[in-house]
Amino acid sequence: MSLVVCGSMAFDAIETPFGKSDKIIGGAGTYIAWCASNFTPVKQISVVGGDFPKDELQTLEARGVNVEAVEIKEDEKTFFWAGKYHLDMNTRDTLDTQLNVLANFNPVVPDSYQDCKYLMLGNLVPAVQLSVIKQFKKRPELIVLDTMNFWMETCMDDLEKVIAEVDVLMVNDSEARQLSGQFSLVKAAQSIHRMGPKYVIIKKGEHGALLFHDGKVFYAPALPLEEVFDPTGAGDTFAGGFIGHIAKTGDISFENMKTAVIIGSAMASYCVEKFGTARLRELTEKDIEARINEFVGLVSFDSELA
Amino acid sequence: MSLVVCGSMAFDAIETPFGKSDKIIGGAGTYIAWCASNFTPVKQISVVGGDFPKDELQTLEARGVNVEAVEIKEDEKTFFWAGKYHLDMNTRDTLDTQLNVLANFNPVVPDSYQDCKYLMLGNLVPAVQLSVIKQFKKRPELIVLDTMNFWMETCMDDLEKVIAEVDVLMVNDSEARQLSGQFSLVKAAQSIHRMGPKYVIIKKGEHGALLFHDGKVFYAPALPLEEVFDPTGAGDTFAGGFIGHIAKTGDISFENMKTAVIIGSAMASYCVEKFGTARLRELTEKDIEARINEFVGLVSFDSELA
Repeated sequence: MSLVVCGSMAFDAIETPFGKSDKIIGGAGTYIAWCASNFTPVKQISVVGGDFPKDELQTLEARGVNVEAVEIKEDEKTFFWAGKYHLDMNTRDTLDTQLNVLANFNPVVPDSYQDCKYLMLGNLVPAVQLSVIKQFKKRPELIVLDTMNFWMETCMDDLEKVIAEVDVLMVNDSEARQLSGQFSLVKAAQSIHRMGPKYVIIKKGEHGALLFHDGKVFYAPALPLEEVFDPTGAGDTFAGGFIGHIAKTGDISFENMKTAVIIGSAMASYCVEKFGTARLRELTEKDIEARINEFVGLVSFDSELA
Repeated sequence: MSLVVCGSMAFDAIETPFGKSDKIIGGAGTYIAWCASNFTPVKQISVVGGDFPKDELQTLEARGVNVEAVEIKEDEKTFFWAGKYHLDMNTRDTLDTQLNVLANFNPVVPDSYQDCKYLMLGNLVPAVQLSVIKQFKKRPELIVLDTMNFWMETCMDDLEKVIAEVDVLMVNDSEARQLSGQFSLVKAAQSIHRMGPKYVIIKKGEHGALLFHDGKVFYAPALPLEEVFDPTGAGDTFAGGFIGHIAKTGDISFENMKTAVIIGSAMASYCVEKFGTARLRELTEKDIEARINEFVGLVSFDSELA
C-alpha cells in the first residue's frame, strides 16, 4: 500500500502578529511528509537546491520517508517564500517568492515508486501534477489533489485537466467559490464534482472542513484554539493526515474518509501551534491519539436525547 | 417545568438577494415561541400594538403558547424593523426602526408565570431583561440570555448587570469578540465566563455554534445549505430550539445542552429556508426529526477507525 507524495520542499520566512521566523524549512511536500509519516511510509517526489540541509532529508528518511525522487540540484537554490499574516490570521501578503529550482521542475517517477496505491499531489504547478499522474503505468487507486487560487488565475486550463484526473480535490472555501463561481459551498461542491472529483473536501480554517460525496456531506469541526501561532502549512498538514490515515488503513470508503478528515484536522490543529514544522517535529504517538480523542469529544452528543 | 419567554413581537420588512417581503410578522419573541412550542408549552411576555393581528396570538395559543402577558396597546403601533441583507447574507443594513410600543415596554410578570423553571430572554433592552428576572420571587433554574452588539454600544453598564445574572449567554462570534475584547473565541468565552455565565454559546452562522462550559467545548456544525433564503430570526429560532429542548427534557446538564445546541441548529437551518417565520409555521414533528437525524449524520464518524 505504497503512498507517493509530490510537493515542494522549500524555505519560508514567516511573519505573524506573534513574531517572525528566520528562513526555516517549509513547503507543501515537507509538511505532508512530516505529517503522513506518523501513519505510514512515504515515497517523496520533490526538488531542492544545494542549500537545502542534507540532514533534513536524513531525518525524514529515518521517519520512513523515501527520498529517492527528491532531486538535489547542487548548483541551484531551493524555492523560497516569504509572507506576512494579518491580525485575523486568515489573510496574508506574499512578500517574496523565489522559484529557483521549482522554475524547471520536471519530476521523474522512479520504478521503485510504480507500486503507488495512493498519490497525494501537494499544491504545485498543475502541469507538473499532471505529468506525475501520467508517469504511473498503473493508475493509483486514489489520487488526491491540493491546489490554490494562484493556479486558477494563471493556468486554469492546465488546472482543469489535472482536476479531471483526480478522485479527491482539496481546496479552501474561497478557492472552491472561485473555482466553481458558486457562493454556496454545497453548489460549489456539486460543480466541482462535475469537473471530475468524486470527493470534494472544502477546508474552512478555524471553521472546520466539509467532505462532499455522492449527495452526502460530512462536517469536521476545527478545534477552537486559544492562539493560532502560525497557520503556514496547516492545509498541507491536513492533507498529510488525511492521506496518511487512508494509506495506513487501506480503506477508501466514504466512512473511512470521514475519519481521515478528522485526523487531518487534528494534525492541522497541532501544526499551527508553533512556527513552521516545529510542532510537527516533536509530536509523539500519544500526542496524536490525545488530539484525535479531543476531536471525538468536541462533536459527540447523545442523539438518543433528541 | 414551565418555560417563560420574553422577547419582541414585531413587524419586519426584509430584503434579501432572493427577494423582498411585505410587512410580515417577526420579532425575537415570535421566532422563539414558534420554535420552542414544538417541544414544550410556552408562557410568553411581550408587547404589541393594536395593529398586530389578533389571529397570530390565537394561532400561538392553539400551539400551547400562553399569551396572558402579551400586552396589547390598542392605540399604539407594533415595533417595526426593515432591513436589507448583503450578497453574503452575513451582513445587513437596517433601513428603518420604529420602536413604537417597545419604547415604553415595562413588562409585568403575572402570578401564573411564577412557576417559571426556565427563562429565555430574547434580544431586548438589557434593563427590561433585568426587570423580568427581578420579578421572579423564586429564581428560575436556568436563565438564558440573547443580546446583540447594539446594546454593547449604547448601554454596556445595563448589559453587564443582566449578563451577571444569567446562566447561559448566547451571542454571535463578532459580538463575543466585541463584548470580551478578545479575538480568540476560546479566550472570549473565558472572559465572558468571568462576567457571570457558566455556559457561553457562540453562534457562527453557517459555521455552526460553540458551547463552552467549565473548560470544555462542544462544536455543533451548521447544515451546509444550497441556499439561505432569509437569515432573519435564525438566532432566535436557535434559542427557541435550545430552550425548548431543555424545558421538554427537564435536564440542564452539559451533556443535554450539547443535544439542545444541535436541536437549536437544526431548527435554525429550517428557519432560513423561507422568508420570516413561514418555514417554521409549516414544520411537522417528522420534519424536525428528519433534520435532527441529518445533523447526527453530518458529524458522525467511526472513531474506532482512528
